Amino acid sequence: MLRDFARPTKPPRAEIRQRTAAEQAKLAANQIAIKEAKVPVMVIFEGWGAAGKGSLLARVIKDMDPRFFKVHTLDAKPTAEERRHPFLYRYLTKIPEEGQFGFFDTFWKEEVTTGLLSGSLDQADYDKRIDSINRAERQLVDNGYLVMKFFCHIGKKEQRSRLDNLKASKDTRWRVDSDDYWENDHYDECLDVYGRYLRDTNRSGAPWYVIDCKDRTWAALQVLEFLNKGIETAIQNHGLAAHIRQNVFPLRKTPPLASIDLDKSLDDEGYHRELKELQARLHKLHNAVYRRRVPVVIAYEGWDAAGKGGNIKRITAALDPRGYEVHPIASPEPHEKARLFLWRFWNRLPKSGHIAIFDRTWYGRVMVERIEGFCSQNDWQRAYNEINEFEKELVDAGTVVIKFWVQIDSETQLKRFTDRQNTPEKQWKITEEDWRNRDKWDLYEQAIDEMLQRTNTTFAPWHVLESNDKHYARIKALRIVVEALEEACEA
Amino acid sequence: MLRDFARPTKPPRAEIRQRTAAEQAKLAANQIAIKEAKVPVMVIFEGWGAAGKGSLLARVIKDMDPRFFKVHTLDAKPTAEERRHPFLYRYLTKIPEEGQFGFFDTFWKEEVTTGLLSGSLDQADYDKRIDSINRAERQLVDNGYLVMKFFCHIGKKEQRSRLDNLKASKDTRWRVDSDDYWENDHYDECLDVYGRYLRDTNRSGAPWYVIDCKDRTWAALQVLEFLNKGIETAIQNHGLAAHIRQNVFPLRKTPPLASIDLDKSLDDEGYHRELKELQARLHKLHNAVYRRRVPVVIAYEGWDAAGKGGNIKRITAALDPRGYEVHPIASPEPHEKARLFLWRFWNRLPKSGHIAIFDRTWYGRVMVERIEGFCSQNDWQRAYNEINEFEKELVDAGTVVIKFWVQIDSETQLKRFTDRQNTPEKQWKITEEDWRNRDKWDLYEQAIDEMLQRTNTTFAPWHVLESNDKHYARIKALRIVVEALEEACEA
Repeated sequence: MLRDFARPTKPPRAEIRQRTAAEQAKLAANQIAIKEAKVPVMVIFEGWGAAGKGSLLARVIKDMDPRFFKVHTLDAKPTAEERRHPFLYRYLTKIPEEGQFGFFDTFWKEEVTTGLLSGSLDQADYDKRIDSINRAERQLVDNGYLVMKFFCHIGKKEQRSRLDNLKASKDTRWRVDSDDYWENDHYDECLDVYGRYLRDTNRSGAPWYVIDCKDRTWAALQVLEFLNKGIETAIQNHGLAAHIRQNVFPLRKTPPLASIDLDKSLDDEGYHRELKELQARLHKLHNAVYRRRVPVVIAYEGWDAAGKGGNIKRITAALDPRGYEVHPIASPEPHEKARLFLWRFWNRLPKSGHIAIFDRTWYGRVMVERIEGFCSQNDWQRAYNEINEFEKELVDAGTVVIKFWVQIDSETQLKRFTDRQNTPEKQWKITEEDWRNRDKWDLYEQAIDEMLQRTNTTFAPWHVLESNDKHYARIKALRIVVEALEEACEA
Repeated sequence: MLRDFARPTKPPRAEIRQRTAAEQAKLAANQIAIKEAKVPVMVIFEGWGAAGKGSLLARVIKDMDPRFFKVHTLDAKPTAEERRHPFLYRYLTKIPEEGQFGFFDTFWKEEVTTGLLSGSLDQADYDKRIDSINRAERQLVDNGYLVMKFFCHIGKKEQRSRLDNLKASKDTRWRVDSDDYWENDHYDECLDVYGRYLRDTNRSGAPWYVIDCKDRTWAALQVLEFLNKGIETAIQNHGLAAHIRQNVFPLRKTPPLASIDLDKSLDDEGYHRELKELQARLHKLHNAVYRRRVPVVIAYEGWDAAGKGGNIKRITAALDPRGYEVHPIASPEPHEKARLFLWRFWNRLPKSGHIAIFDRTWYGRVMVERIEGFCSQNDWQRAYNEINEFEKELVDAGTVVIKFWVQIDSETQLKRFTDRQNTPEKQWKITEEDWRNRDKWDLYEQAIDEMLQRTNTTFAPWHVLESNDKHYARIKALRIVVEALEEACEA
């Protein structure tokens, strides 16, 4: 199964020593080049138990500056906490920032192949995981990440004798467990599954390198040479634009903002009656959501002064404070800007049974970042698909995703801005920036129409809240949330 | 197996009619946009027998200008002639040029899944085909091609009733054969294989669209909408650079040109004796090559006046003229420039049992085209990998690939140029351009060193011919050819 991968020929021992020293020096220099080019680098080690991933890693990083890399050791089994998030979560939250190296002693392969071998993952789930991994690796590469994947390979006999040796000594016995022997006893079956996984995830942007690990010094040289070559290619690539991908998700039609009827309203009495009734239902449902371990994401986007804050309050008023969190989203911090733009949202995902409400969201990429030029045109054009892929991951993990666009017209915004300016206790709510953004209303409207059209997927559709009358918008939002949660709890 | 693909919801009949007309008009407009943006478009239809691919195609092209598209109908079974070339050959030779559409009624999927189902392709061969297809589609997309792939889907019962209807009428009986009924009888098995193929080749750059073909008008609308969206994305992409890929092939080290000992020579007597002996062996071998159906590619690159022509003559003198062809490669013609740069070489591949000698080759991309700026930096940087992938296809198809670099030093070139200029019957061999190229010796040497290093794969290595003494170089070339063919005929 591994025959399709590049396997360099082993040179004599003296040459290995000499070339290794040269490559280690080159890696130290490349580390500075990576820092200067601001390329983030992921180096992933997967492979057989007792293949020597740990000592291999030690040889590779020997001459590197420890301030600019981090080593992550991941267990094949996610923690109970991690299992309460989408599959990619425990991995994507650990990606390095630009100019930095992240070394991973096993990554997403291990969880997937172990799951398949143990039967905890069936073929259909496996296929889904492969899709998730390929999409995620492509996103990383499209966003300038260098992803280097090494499979540490040893033969069946070699593995057995290493395991026996480790077990024979008191000092190393702890490093061997029954899983290692199980792998050795089922070597051919494992080889088949690993080989299939390598094929299924062997993409041009992030190919596999199979490392012959029988000889530890030779193994290190192979990794060093591939890694240095990969770095040199990545530095060349840096600054090249990435292709926008064709949309592959089913979309619903959305009407343009201009065609939305904003005259909808609700009288005071109807508002208070419905508010009370819906909040009572939501309160009960929050319990059901918690017991059934459903993760919920409620995303708010809308014009300044559209009434997002008040709308969110009417939702949270009905919720148990131990089971929800509101994330106000401002401009990304420097350490967030230094990563995949979706990273800060991966980090804020609710665990199962919890509700996360986002006051502004990942859609900033295709609105403010687009209009203000905070990212390149290529970046925001690519983002529609990256966002759809992100939401697909959430939905596939059982998350209820509710997206609100809070809509008002330009006159209503002007009235509310003026009111804020003239009311001392509301003045904190209005800034120079709000007025500057208002001047760009038409540009924003065009961007928002495009956003609604391109991200209105059947699995995570947009809901427009007509908010010239805030009461109407609040009741509509509550009803949508209640109905979505009822559906999720019945399913 | 098909559940992972986008499947839009069918609208009411009146809406289908209206949207179809709009999309046909849009496609006619997009055809002009494609022409202006010089994007080449491939539209591939695969799917079940009797799914209605033909009538679907007719509806799609209805309003298009026939001067700018071509319809290709491919049989699942390659012809005997096509079978004598590498797998990709019969497909890549049919790609459209920029600004043009190529519509394909079945493409490489059909041959592969039919092969797997009939047992003529085993799992390992299938895996190889998948690699070939994915690489080829990626190359096309990297080179600005839009590749749209539609799988025409109908259910088992629907297929059966269509087949029976076709068979019932004298006029349509000829369209049904036993293969169609076999497919229907083994519907679930086929569905499994088709679904797996779709997954294995569903890449971001060229994703699959599964088309519900139960209703023909609705099927056409789905294709039209996906196609128009794909075109709009492709026009946006146009001009965006593509990523250089990491090398995944095993490479041999090559010494820099400057370190090559050019003092090697051969006395007259030794030359004539060896020439005679080697040519006699080669003559015999050509027969063996023909009988064993081995395809052979001999590629010559080297400095101007290095002696390529005379060297080639000493090879061909020993060959049966019915079994070889020499391809002198000059600048690409406009219709060649308008396609993937490797296309003109795909078209010149030898069939099995034949020898093709290239006097200059696809390596022009990383030498003259690089130095003279005939392609972008991104283009030639990407070409190393594209060339390695191309040669891998040849070798995997059993081709013997021999690559010669004919090396001389600058003083020898000057002497030969001067001699040509001063000898009336040799003057046609020397042009102003040769002198201009000579001025760029150092730039070329740097490009050639990089080329030799990056494309010296273990499966298609370079051979340097030291040609200050032309006799020495000729004998060395003959010996390498003889030994390579002996090895191939023994294997």
